[in-house]
Amino acid sequence: MPDRIETALMAALTHASGPSAPPLLAGALQHAVFPGGARVRPQLCLAVAAACGDDRPTLSDAAAASIELIHCASLVHDDMPCFDDADLRRGKPTVHAAYSEPLALLAGDALIVLAFEILARAAIRTPARLPGMVVALASHTGMPGGICAGQGWESEASVDLSLYHRAKTGSLFVAATTMGAQAAGAEPEPWVELGARIGEAFQVADDLRDALLTQDELGKPAGQDVAHHRPNAVSELGVKGAVQKLHDILGGAIASIPSCPGEARLCEIVSAQAKRLTPVEFARALA
Amino acid sequence: MPDRIETALMAALTHASGPSAPPLLAGALQHAVFPGGARVRPQLCLAVAAACGDDRPTLSDAAAASIELIHCASLVHDDMPCFDDADLRRGKPTVHAAYSEPLALLAGDALIVLAFEILARAAIRTPARLPGMVVALASHTGMPGGICAGQGWESEASVDLSLYHRAKTGSLFVAATTMGAQAAGAEPEPWVELGARIGEAFQVADDLRDALLTQDELGKPAGQDVAHHRPNAVSELGVKGAVQKLHDILGGAIASIPSCPGEARLCEIVSAQAKRLTPVEFARALA
Repeated sequence: MPDRIETALMAALTHASGPSAPPLLAGALQHAVFPGGARVRPQLCLAVAAACGDDRPTLSDAAAASIELIHCASLVHDDMPCFDDADLRRGKPTVHAAYSEPLALLAGDALIVLAFEILARAAIRTPARLPGMVVALASHTGMPGGICAGQGWESEASVDLSLYHRAKTGSLFVAATTMGAQAAGAEPEPWVELGARIGEAFQVADDLRDALLTQDELGKPAGQDVAHHRPNAVSELGVKGAVQKLHDILGGAIASIPSCPGEARLCEIVSAQAKRLTPVEFARALA
Repeated sequence: MPDRIETALMAALTHASGPSAPPLLAGALQHAVFPGGARVRPQLCLAVAAACGDDRPTLSDAAAASIELIHCASLVHDDMPCFDDADLRRGKPTVHAAYSEPLALLAGDALIVLAFEILARAAIRTPARLPGMVVALASHTGMPGGICAGQGWESEASVDLSLYHRAKTGSLFVAATTMGAQAAGAEPEPWVELGARIGEAFQVADDLRDALLTQDELGKPAGQDVAHHRPNAVSELGVKGAVQKLHDILGGAIASIPSCPGEARLCEIVSAQAKRLTPVEFARALA
């Protein structure tokens, strides 16, 4: 499955970097997307598409890639000086550090746009599936409840932690599960809970990593939640409470998988992600 | 027609500012879109839709509003400190000046996303028209040839002025004419030239205004092209040459209007825009 994702992302970036493109901005897009992280959202999207029959693999590939492009865009913008002011991401310079602030801002914008474009290009033969998929991608990305909204809560004096996390991290996981279903012609609603629970687990795991690991282990600056006074699960529940919450959420995620032909395989994938999310360092912290 | 545009924009913003939205970011979106400028791109979009029969006014309204949302997003991002560092826009504080840099960055992102979302919501009953419209909006907004690409050229050491202007300013006018046609079920290609010529005229007029008018007349800082060493028509052709070019382009725009039922009305609208673009100050500069 990773090959399908990388192939779809490369095709998208090749299109966006066409001969008439300004070369530095094209380079910034490439830098933002390759080499990737775990590509966990697009893998989840393809896993749900497969569980639903995946009758239009070109469309599910585009859905998976579109979600990853939005994720990469959000990382580029989040790393900028007016947010996290981070110089490192995945062990290499962030886009604004490697290129410039203007090019990082534009790269994020262009990646958001590209996400919608590849979805539309892949849906030309199945246009009836497109409106719902665009609405899903948009509503989980923008306002009032997508990742932009989640990030926007960080500017508010008072924040509902659960609403904040659901928007900031959870929403792209819900986009992944629901759009995987939609790409295969299935209804999205039965897949909302799985995405929401995996997203919640990721946020808790991310909070734990930020609190417990070093910059070398993370490949980016550590201790950012405390440094930026951001609400997080560790400050709310303590390390033990956060690890326990993570286990509970992942158990619920697997239980929520709807009955479908690809159910068993999907359970395996979610379990593997769960193992990845609870590394030995967390156990060490509990000892 | 302006009422249709404002109504569609208000509906979009109301959706994006729903009860679960972070209030400051919702305020920043509102600030970015209202009160508007001349709304020239959405007017052009609706004029072309009308010329093509406008059989789905809800879809053409959404197309018009989507283009204006992208335009507003680009203004919000362009005004930020890493680009123009402008505190004033349309005579009032820019979004980052009134709210903050993080909220301006997020507001631009959310407006881009909202543009695609309203298009998809309006196309649920005519999905066959959606793929082409999303591709049009995206390709004129992002990379390799949309407004992001145009802005990206400003980071390059060497720039083709015509390619730069076509992407930075022309592309949203081409989106306006072609999406107006597509919303009415017509082919987009015959409408490319009209959009391209009006876009080129706007860029030349904008360069002239930036060079000749004062901050009070503009409602934003003047002399920005020179201050930021940006390529522009006045530095390339001189004031007289730029005014002459503007006249030539507008003549060509009217001549390019395809034969269609609404042709006469559309010629009137373009002529009225042409008058607006060549104010007495330009004649004064030539005297």
